Amino acid sequence: MSSPFTLIKQSSQCPARRGQVTTVHGTFQTPVFMPVGTQATVKGATPADLKTLGAEIILANTYHLFLRPGHHLVKELGGLHRFMAWDRPILTDSGGFQIFSLKDLTKISEQGAAFKSHLDGANLFLSPEDAVAVQEALGTDIMMCLDTCIPYPASREEAKKATDLTSRWARRCREAQNRQTGQLLFGIVQGGMYKDLRAEAIEALIDIGFDGYAMGGLSVGEPKDLMYEMTEHTTALMPKDYPIYLMGVGTPEDLVEGVWRGVDMFDCVMPTRNARNGLLFTSSGKIVIKNAQYQRDERPLDESCSCYTCRNFSRAYLRHLYMAKEILAANLNTIHNLHYYVGLMSGIRQALEEDRFAEFRQAFYALRQTE
Amino acid sequence: MSSPFTLIKQSSQCPARRGQVTTVHGTFQTPVFMPVGTQATVKGATPADLKTLGAEIILANTYHLFLRPGHHLVKELGGLHRFMAWDRPILTDSGGFQIFSLKDLTKISEQGAAFKSHLDGANLFLSPEDAVAVQEALGTDIMMCLDTCIPYPASREEAKKATDLTSRWARRCREAQNRQTGQLLFGIVQGGMYKDLRAEAIEALIDIGFDGYAMGGLSVGEPKDLMYEMTEHTTALMPKDYPIYLMGVGTPEDLVEGVWRGVDMFDCVMPTRNARNGLLFTSSGKIVIKNAQYQRDERPLDESCSCYTCRNFSRAYLRHLYMAKEILAANLNTIHNLHYYVGLMSGIRQALEEDRFAEFRQAFYALRQTE
Repeated sequence: MSSPFTLIKQSSQCPARRGQVTTVHGTFQTPVFMPVGTQATVKGATPADLKTLGAEIILANTYHLFLRPGHHLVKELGGLHRFMAWDRPILTDSGGFQIFSLKDLTKISEQGAAFKSHLDGANLFLSPEDAVAVQEALGTDIMMCLDTCIPYPASREEAKKATDLTSRWARRCREAQNRQTGQLLFGIVQGGMYKDLRAEAIEALIDIGFDGYAMGGLSVGEPKDLMYEMTEHTTALMPKDYPIYLMGVGTPEDLVEGVWRGVDMFDCVMPTRNARNGLLFTSSGKIVIKNAQYQRDERPLDESCSCYTCRNFSRAYLRHLYMAKEILAANLNTIHNLHYYVGLMSGIRQALEEDRFAEFRQAFYALRQTE
Repeated sequence: MSSPFTLIKQSSQCPARRGQVTTVHGTFQTPVFMPVGTQATVKGATPADLKTLGAEIILANTYHLFLRPGHHLVKELGGLHRFMAWDRPILTDSGGFQIFSLKDLTKISEQGAAFKSHLDGANLFLSPEDAVAVQEALGTDIMMCLDTCIPYPASREEAKKATDLTSRWARRCREAQNRQTGQLLFGIVQGGMYKDLRAEAIEALIDIGFDGYAMGGLSVGEPKDLMYEMTEHTTALMPKDYPIYLMGVGTPEDLVEGVWRGVDMFDCVMPTRNARNGLLFTSSGKIVIKNAQYQRDERPLDESCSCYTCRNFSRAYLRHLYMAKEILAANLNTIHNLHYYVGLMSGIRQALEEDRFAEFRQAFYALRQTE
C-alpha cells in the first residue's frame, strides 16, 4: 500500500519534518494547520477568505453533518466539496469526539455508539461501519476511524478497555471502507496517558495498515508537559513514512512543540472560536480586543501581519466592532487569527526547508517574551 | 452656490433622470441606492465586499456613532472613512429619526432634542448645531439637517408644528455649518401627508439654500399609494438642479417607483436586515430561504445574478447555513441582497441612459408576475 505522504526534508535538529500529503482534491504541504469548518463552513470566513489567507486543507465534523443537513443530502448535492464550495482537501473526524462529549446521552457497546441528537433528542446510532459510510457519502479526502475517547484522568483499566475497543473498531472501519474512491483513512491512537497502551495501540493500527496515523485523547485537560511527553512518545513509535496527525491541538506554542516532536497535521477551533470572543493572536502574544487600552489604538493588530484585517483596520475599530457586537468583528477577527495560524505553519515549513527550525523556535519564544 | 448634481440625461417618459453627485470623496452615479452602515459597518459585509458588488456610497447613522464610539474618537482616529476603511462617499443622517424612535425617552424643545441613550440610559441632548458638529467631526461627505419626525397618522396641527420646527432647525444647521470642509448639507422636507405643508417646507428650505433636498417622514406606515402620491407631489416641487433623496425607502418596487417620480437617492436597511432574516430578493421575487422547498434545491438564489453567493452556492447550502445559524449565512445573504439592490439601480441607470425606463419598469413587473 502506497503512502500519501512524501518527505521533503527531515530536520537534523529534531523529529520535525517538511513534507506533503496527496489526496483526491490535491496536495497540501506539511506541517499544516487545518481550520475547523464544523457545519460545512469555517465560522466567520468565506471559502474565498480561506484561500486568500492560505488554507490548504480544512476539517469538517462528521457528527454535525450527519445530524444536519445529513450525509445523504450532501451526497445528493454532489458531496461536501461542492456543497460548501471548497475545492481543496477536506478531512472529516469520525464523530467519536462529539458523541463522547454528549456524556450521559451516549452509550457505548462493542457494536458502536448509541446517542441522542443535541438538536432534537432523537435516538441515533453510529457503528464504525456507519462512520466510514457517512464520510464516504460526504466525499471527503481524509476520513478518520471511529474511536472512543478517554477522559483525563482515567484509570489504566478504563484506558485499556477504551483503547482496545478503538483498535477493534479501527479494523472494522478499514474493512468497511470502499477502496475505490481514493479517499484516505487514518487510524487513531488512543491509550490515555499510559505509554505502554499508546505503544500497543500503534502496533494494532500498523498491523491493520492505514493511510495516516493520528493521536487522539491529548489536550483533554492533562498538564502541558504531559501532553508534550505523550506526543513525543507516540510520534516516536509511529511509522515515519505516513502522515502524523495530532487531533484537536492547539495553541501556537502547541503547534511549534508538536512539529518539534514530529507532528505533520493539526486542527483546532482555537483561532476561530477565540476570534469570535475577541481574543487575537499576534507575533508578540495575545490581544483581548475589548480592553480599554485599545480604544484609541490606531495600530493594526500585528504590525508584521499582511492579512486583510491588519492591512485595513485599527485596533480601535476592531474594538468598536466587538463592543457593538457587529458581525464584521467575527469576520475580521477570524481572518486575522486564521492568517496567523496558517502563517505560523508557513514560517515553520520555510524554517524546516532551511534546516533552522531550532532557531525559528527560539525566535518564536523570544519575540513573545520581549513584549 | 454651485450644485453637486450634474444631470446626465432627463427621461422623456417621466420625471426620472440619470445624473451624478460630486463629493469630497468622489462622484457617485444616480439614481443610487446607499447600503446602511449604522455603526460604521454595513452589517454582514466587508468594505471589500461592498466595492465588489458595486456600492458607490454608503450611509452611516449619526445617532449610533455619537453614542459609540463617539464622534470625538472617530475624528481623533482620522475620521469615519479611515476608521471604517471606506474611501468612497458616506452620507450620515442627522440622528433625528433614531432619537424620535426612542419615543418616551425623548423630549423636543425649540432648542433641540433631549433623549436617553439606549445603551446606558445617559441623559443626552442634540441641538441642530450639535448634529452638524457631530457630522463634521465624522467627516462625512453628505450631512443631513436635524429634523423632527411626524408619525402616521398625524393631525394637521401636529404636522404643521413639527414641519415648522424642522424648517427653523434647518436654518440653524445651515448657519452652523463650516463651509470650508467641502462637506455637503441636505435639507429635509417634512410635512406629513399634507401636500400644502410639504410645499411650505420646500419653500422654506429653498429660501435657506442647500446642497440637496430630502424627503423625510415617508414609508412610516401610510398606504403605499399615499407614499407614492406624496413622493410625486414633493419631488415635483423640488429644485431640479440639486440631488433629490427619499429617506429610508424601500422595497425594490419602491425604488423603481421612486425613480419614476424623480428621486435620485435612496437608503434602506431592507436588503441587509432581510438578508440576516433569510429573506432574499431575486429578479423573479422573494425567497424565504428557511422554507423546506429549498432543502434539496441545487440552483443559485437567482440564475441571472453574478454575485459571489450565486456564483458559488446553492439554495440548499444557504438554507443549511441559515438553519444552522452560521455567520456565513448573514455574509452570503447580505452580499446577494445588496448586489441585487445595487444591480437594480445599475439597470435603472442603463435604461435611463437609453431613455427606455418605461420599458424597464414594465419588464421589472412582468418578470415578477410570471413566476
